[in-house]
Amino acid sequence: MHSFQQVSEIFAEKFQQRHFPTEPAGLYEPAEYFLAIGGKRIRPIACIMGNELFNRTKTSVWSIAYALELFHNFTLLHDDIMDDSPLRRSRATVHVRNGINTAILSGDAMLIKAYEYLSDAKTRYLPSLLELFNKTAKEVCEGQQLDMDFEKRDSIAMDEYIRMITLKTSVLLAASFEMGAITAGAWKDDCAHIYEFGKNLGIAFQIQDDYLDCFGDPMKLGKTIGGDVRRNKKTFLLVKAQEEVLGVQKVELTQLLADNADDKVEKIIDIFKSCGVDKWAKELWQSYADKALRHLSDIKVEDSRKKYLRDLADYLLNREY
Amino acid sequence: MHSFQQVSEIFAEKFQQRHFPTEPAGLYEPAEYFLAIGGKRIRPIACIMGNELFNRTKTSVWSIAYALELFHNFTLLHDDIMDDSPLRRSRATVHVRNGINTAILSGDAMLIKAYEYLSDAKTRYLPSLLELFNKTAKEVCEGQQLDMDFEKRDSIAMDEYIRMITLKTSVLLAASFEMGAITAGAWKDDCAHIYEFGKNLGIAFQIQDDYLDCFGDPMKLGKTIGGDVRRNKKTFLLVKAQEEVLGVQKVELTQLLADNADDKVEKIIDIFKSCGVDKWAKELWQSYADKALRHLSDIKVEDSRKKYLRDLADYLLNREY
Repeated sequence: MHSFQQVSEIFAEKFQQRHFPTEPAGLYEPAEYFLAIGGKRIRPIACIMGNELFNRTKTSVWSIAYALELFHNFTLLHDDIMDDSPLRRSRATVHVRNGINTAILSGDAMLIKAYEYLSDAKTRYLPSLLELFNKTAKEVCEGQQLDMDFEKRDSIAMDEYIRMITLKTSVLLAASFEMGAITAGAWKDDCAHIYEFGKNLGIAFQIQDDYLDCFGDPMKLGKTIGGDVRRNKKTFLLVKAQEEVLGVQKVELTQLLADNADDKVEKIIDIFKSCGVDKWAKELWQSYADKALRHLSDIKVEDSRKKYLRDLADYLLNREY
Repeated sequence: MHSFQQVSEIFAEKFQQRHFPTEPAGLYEPAEYFLAIGGKRIRPIACIMGNELFNRTKTSVWSIAYALELFHNFTLLHDDIMDDSPLRRSRATVHVRNGINTAILSGDAMLIKAYEYLSDAKTRYLPSLLELFNKTAKEVCEGQQLDMDFEKRDSIAMDEYIRMITLKTSVLLAASFEMGAITAGAWKDDCAHIYEFGKNLGIAFQIQDDYLDCFGDPMKLGKTIGGDVRRNKKTFLLVKAQEEVLGVQKVELTQLLADNADDKVEKIIDIFKSCGVDKWAKELWQSYADKALRHLSDIKVEDSRKKYLRDLADYLLNREY
């Protein structure tokens, strides 16, 4: 078995290859460029660790891990167009670098390549893998649609927001763990538990992400705080605050969101504190983290095999950056 | 066994159902709208006829037929954005009606739905079906990329053009026939023959399409001739003419393409005639049609079973509109 760090290094090494033919270059060069921008590769790592929990790594798991990373990059490539993001990890996005048409088509080719990698799975696991992958892929699109819908609305109920975040970011992490487990021949119950482990971990991670943007240490984060607040991004904190604030403070928050005053970030963070949103977020994140760890405990394999997944959860949930 | 017309009616009836959930409506309503615009449904019909050639229709072929139609519509939806086409079959395209972001995401959801239908195939056929579908999907993207690349170039060699058209339009028809055959449990050799039947039929059809635009009967076509010529669309005729013309005529053709004179269509069609492009096109289309029919003959099933596929080829190749 390998630690998160070890799997990460092995994957990075293996993944550094061409994934597409050289021609037509107009289609495939942007796809290779985008993959080379890199990232934490969390999903393929989750898949491989999910596999190792039940077994020695099966060689057939690699193509599933590739499929997950390709799928994730496909969503990023198309989301960048929809959000009109100029940069990703400090590099130009494809639609800025090569135009929207190329970004659409290269993204399409990336989704097809994801299915091609997935199709390399052993025939006996193929139906279950496809079923989970198709379901997840649809959910990720639905999450993106809800996110775009919500941006146009003034306020969102917390349960709607949690549903959106779950679809947009958590189900793919959940499916990554489970696809690794399926490929190891894990029992159905254990597959369900590792899925829930990943899903709850993903939600906890997102809450923490939102929290750190407001209450993190700028030195450790390596960026100024309140980026989400400045651009009115709907986050756990804002959605909760909009539910909680009353009277004068409600008017003040609405005003701060409408204007773009210099002290906007500072004042909104003050409102978050005064209605206890910071404490609430920590509790919520802890409750999702606990739920994730309970599902990990429920998996019927020797406890010692779970060490690296516990370490991974610790790493993801106790970061300060 | 059923004739082309019968299969067409049965398919139209069955396909007229919801293919997506109702929510989120922003994602799925445009997808349903686009599917309801309709079309000739040639690919699913090819799939079903390819299935019936070898067997009584297997019920499992329907989901494959749906997958092919969904995939085709996904390509149309995204191509409409890339070509900035305002209309499809006299209805507003999705990016015009709902915006580019919705068109991208609804197209993505359609591609995923295609894979979902495909995943319903019997497990024993799944690997072959996926392999062919993935390969074809990639080729269609490559064809679209080459088409966009060629639009920016002044001239294209005939072999490059044939390759582009084959990828962009013929391989999906070819794969549709073969996927029907695979699902019927047909032998590998027969699968290869029906693929080549479809591929050559597709190329012949495209040549004829280009021919009719210039030399068809406007009354039968129901539109004025020369639409492709007016907008300098690279067609078999133009690509061939650019290879053939010499001297003064070469200069004249270049000039006609650069300007947009009132008599442009008439004069370019005259050039086509004077360098024999019209006769050449008819011969080329006949040679692809012959090749298609030879592959149909080579399939090892009773000759009487091939009647409806011959009728289909006749219908597609001897139309005057």
